[in-house]
Amino acid sequence: MRIDVPLGKAYLLLNHGPVTLVTSRSGERTNVMAASWAMPLDFDPPKVVVVIDRETLTRELVGESREFALNIPPRELADSVVAVGSRSGRDGDKWAGEGLATLPADRIGAPLVDGCIAWLECRLLEERDVERKYDLFIAEVVAASADDRVFSGGRWHFDDPALKTVHYVAGGQFFTIGDPVTGRTGRPG
Amino acid sequence: MRIDVPLGKAYLLLNHGPVTLVTSRSGERTNVMAASWAMPLDFDPPKVVVVIDRETLTRELVGESREFALNIPPRELADSVVAVGSRSGRDGDKWAGEGLATLPADRIGAPLVDGCIAWLECRLLEERDVERKYDLFIAEVVAASADDRVFSGGRWHFDDPALKTVHYVAGGQFFTIGDPVTGRTGRPG
Repeated sequence: MRIDVPLGKAYLLLNHGPVTLVTSRSGERTNVMAASWAMPLDFDPPKVVVVIDRETLTRELVGESREFALNIPPRELADSVVAVGSRSGRDGDKWAGEGLATLPADRIGAPLVDGCIAWLECRLLEERDVERKYDLFIAEVVAASADDRVFSGGRWHFDDPALKTVHYVAGGQFFTIGDPVTGRTGRPG
Repeated sequence: MRIDVPLGKAYLLLNHGPVTLVTSRSGERTNVMAASWAMPLDFDPPKVVVVIDRETLTRELVGESREFALNIPPRELADSVVAVGSRSGRDGDKWAGEGLATLPADRIGAPLVDGCIAWLECRLLEERDVERKYDLFIAEVVAASADDRVFSGGRWHFDDPALKTVHYVAGGQFFTIGDPVTGRTGRPG
């Protein structure tokens, strides 16, 4: 079930470095693309940064609407992540082509990707200089939600291998997220 | 053995979202801090972004020298990552206190962390407006290297559990990186 994540906990959805799908809408046009280069920028109010290449349809739609969503796909969507990352929405609708369905977002016009395990709805801050120079977008997270099978009570719990986050390398290769590790603070003596 | 990584492959060291240790030097002062919020920004010449809080000693040293290194720690250093992320270099030297040793960098004055598995040596670009507003630093990678037990031929190979990258969540909790997954491109029909 999709549950709300408090804004002060939204950074946790992205903190461990999963690949994302960026969804966007401008007017009747929508698109979905893959982005590995997304990370938190601040805790509360939460902000994120994401790199969106200037040649993409997503860039055009985000530039017009000043909104996007970061959708975090589970391992079972890895094929779709590679597919939507491999061609442009200018060459045909990627939703039906890749068997992806949409969900309505709560606070923005862009759709969310059904079957993802977490969602961050974002509105761009006015930093057009870094957008233009670096393809880098700075945004505030205005709503966050997650699939409670893997994120609840402010924590990830990756019990089902099919629902683990995937972390992109290159050439269609990912790693899934692995086992929990607790670091001890401080040292004796 | 520490081997050079071609600059065009440097983004691969950071692409899957591992936690980093940021090292810095200004004059005789050096420091090491933990940073989860670091990612690639461009391929070649490679660029990165990293968030460095304005209250930290690292911020002061990086602000003065305009250089830093991103060191990628393996699982066996997870305790040290939490320890250096939990207190300030202003309160005493963190190197000896946490049992961390240094290596000389190739192209910058900041030291590297011995026992890490990859290193990106970085020089800041002149983007002082986003530094001041968001604590966000944009830098060019001027040298990259890796431990050939886990990265060689342009690929990660995490065979030894002690040498896997760790991906930070919060409160001293990480996940290690998990298993490789290959996404298939395209769909029939």
